[in-house]
Amino acid sequence: MSSARSTGVSDRADLPLPQSVVHKASSVTRLDRWFAAQVQRSIADGPVGLELWDGQPAPGAPSRPVGDLVVGDRRALLGLAFNPDLYLGEAYSAGRIRVRGTLKEVVTALSRSSAANPSWWERAADLLARANDVAAARRNVQHHYDLGNDFYAMWLDADMVYTCAYYPEDGMTLDAAQRAKLDLVCRKLQLRGGETVVEAGCGWGALALHMAGKYAVRVKAFNLSGEQMRWARERARHEGLESRVEFIEDDYRQVTGTYDAFVSVGMLEHVGHRSFDALSRVIQRTIKRDGGRGLLHFIGRDVPRPLNAWIRRRIFPGGYTPTLAEVTSEILGPAGMSVLDVENLRLHYARTLAQWSERFEAAADRVRAIQGEEFYRAWELYLAGSEAAFRTGWMQLFQIVFSPNGSTPPFLTRAALYQASRMAP
Amino acid sequence: MSSARSTGVSDRADLPLPQSVVHKASSVTRLDRWFAAQVQRSIADGPVGLELWDGQPAPGAPSRPVGDLVVGDRRALLGLAFNPDLYLGEAYSAGRIRVRGTLKEVVTALSRSSAANPSWWERAADLLARANDVAAARRNVQHHYDLGNDFYAMWLDADMVYTCAYYPEDGMTLDAAQRAKLDLVCRKLQLRGGETVVEAGCGWGALALHMAGKYAVRVKAFNLSGEQMRWARERARHEGLESRVEFIEDDYRQVTGTYDAFVSVGMLEHVGHRSFDALSRVIQRTIKRDGGRGLLHFIGRDVPRPLNAWIRRRIFPGGYTPTLAEVTSEILGPAGMSVLDVENLRLHYARTLAQWSERFEAAADRVRAIQGEEFYRAWELYLAGSEAAFRTGWMQLFQIVFSPNGSTPPFLTRAALYQASRMAP
Repeated sequence: MSSARSTGVSDRADLPLPQSVVHKASSVTRLDRWFAAQVQRSIADGPVGLELWDGQPAPGAPSRPVGDLVVGDRRALLGLAFNPDLYLGEAYSAGRIRVRGTLKEVVTALSRSSAANPSWWERAADLLARANDVAAARRNVQHHYDLGNDFYAMWLDADMVYTCAYYPEDGMTLDAAQRAKLDLVCRKLQLRGGETVVEAGCGWGALALHMAGKYAVRVKAFNLSGEQMRWARERARHEGLESRVEFIEDDYRQVTGTYDAFVSVGMLEHVGHRSFDALSRVIQRTIKRDGGRGLLHFIGRDVPRPLNAWIRRRIFPGGYTPTLAEVTSEILGPAGMSVLDVENLRLHYARTLAQWSERFEAAADRVRAIQGEEFYRAWELYLAGSEAAFRTGWMQLFQIVFSPNGSTPPFLTRAALYQASRMAP
Repeated sequence: MSSARSTGVSDRADLPLPQSVVHKASSVTRLDRWFAAQVQRSIADGPVGLELWDGQPAPGAPSRPVGDLVVGDRRALLGLAFNPDLYLGEAYSAGRIRVRGTLKEVVTALSRSSAANPSWWERAADLLARANDVAAARRNVQHHYDLGNDFYAMWLDADMVYTCAYYPEDGMTLDAAQRAKLDLVCRKLQLRGGETVVEAGCGWGALALHMAGKYAVRVKAFNLSGEQMRWARERARHEGLESRVEFIEDDYRQVTGTYDAFVSVGMLEHVGHRSFDALSRVIQRTIKRDGGRGLLHFIGRDVPRPLNAWIRRRIFPGGYTPTLAEVTSEILGPAGMSVLDVENLRLHYARTLAQWSERFEAAADRVRAIQGEEFYRAWELYLAGSEAAFRTGWMQLFQIVFSPNGSTPPFLTRAALYQASRMAP
């Protein structure tokens, strides 16, 4: 029991340098080797090998692994044994676990392995997750998005879009694919000049500005991140769209009024399962009953699963990635909405994340200099792990179009979505 | 209580001629008028008026109704009061309730009213519904589909397609719209020559023959209706497709083998909620894990509701129209499938039903001569009521495309679905 307790991860993990850990390590005991065999069994399908701090492979290590996890000390080993979802990220960031081989290939293999062996830790963690009230939502958003616009500008596209892009053609640049996504959303909503739109969770405002600029609609865009709102307002001024776009630094639950369209891209993941009823009521009261429509774009699952514990602790506090069934039965159904259209863009997100990773690696020295090594390693793992999750089908990316039950839908066939666009020439 | 009990509907309703009912009717009591006020209140939103057998409107009747229900006797009135979902159909078919005005407008108005005031009868009836074992499934199918090919040929399209058509262009004929639907299904499945397909519930074989003829795939098509299978086999011989299409008179649960694609159009409604796990297992074991995909086309709901009691008794025994959430969480999720694409074709079904109604009316004399007046009125109401249900958003029509979790999906964007088709020139 004392061994198990010692794996409890503190909020601030120790940060010995990777090499020094190896030298300091105590000798490997028979018990260590038994734990290593358990961990190895859970990841061998990958196949990923496990190596301990004495340089020896764990019992049952695959003969031709795509790569190895090199465990630097006993604490990292016990973390992997008792709570791998949380501890892999913690220990990798701290340099106590290193990867031999390509990080991306190893996490892709682990992701396949994890899909085959869901951990009961994940479910327990979900039960302990609390609902996000407005104050918690604000803290969670600030945790992630107030890292500084300069940080995100190093590796996002020119329009600062931090959600899945859309690649209608091979070889598109990230900038082009993000603009293609913005326009796809507008076409799915069939926006018409002069209409009103409310956006819940607008990031740096790229979609709001695209809608206002290319589709001549009036937009109210909500977001809790002060850093992002300052950037968005400055860009609206610069593009002369101030009269059509209002950026409001507030929670989605504070939305008032009715609109021709409701849109939310990449916010639902942050809402948290227990606040679905609140989002449902917002959707119900903001969309005009006659001719109104909405779009939700979010990271989802095939079956209900909590978000990876490490991602939830370090990257997205309060996050939950729901199934299509949860979104339709807990948000859209109770809001009186009919689902018109669903598209799964999973592989588009894998491609987006690959492009982010490339740009993040290109900016590695600057990221390390400003945020430090542990931060750099955490984000490196987060981007590689997320790409793996979408590549292997562990996560999905859904866009749902909906309209009030019984109202006239915005399109009768989807053919029009694939014809004219209003992309900038 | 004795009044309530007397509304229990026998399997064979009395069939007095409409006119004679009016003459035979007893006088209208205060209690009758009180019941009439209750019924009127539940349908006044329509607005539909209620008139009793003394020629007087019910208390609270709307001043400008779109039409009236003329109730011929006390038993019909009590049926409407205690179990409207079942009894409206029974009494209309028997001529004990007549409609003043256009049947289609009145049932559309009632459908809106019903959407606003869901009846607890529906839920109770659902609880009593039993799972469809193979023998029950066979009886249910025979009830509906063995009415005779000649009957359906009077009003279906040339290819005998008894599911929602697809109207990519205005003013399409029923024949063209059904062929457009068959081809849309093939494009969504991205069928390639030489692949294998299993179809669960193939009707008169139109889709199986389209897939084999235009996409050069090999098809095993299952159906429990002997009448339909004879028709389908004859057509396969006639079109020289016998070597590519095998029509099998058996239950979907008897499907064996693995296939590149699984498709089921208009069968899920007959499966029944309690057999969803059986269908899930069939899907799981028949679709190839690598590159396989499937499509379900079915009548669905925004929120869980049992099928109308009369429709279930007279038209589709054993039927249940599920929500998207039920299908994804109870069938596709447990089968290890990822949802790739969902399209709601509700208004296409309203148009299909309108065209069926027109053709049915044109064949009214022949239908009456062969099947009798009660049958004719029951089908007239069923077609009009179904059109109203889709028109008003009371029912939805979903097509879902899915593939095994983590496998490569059949398309990266949907643009290709809206380009080339292999429609007959």
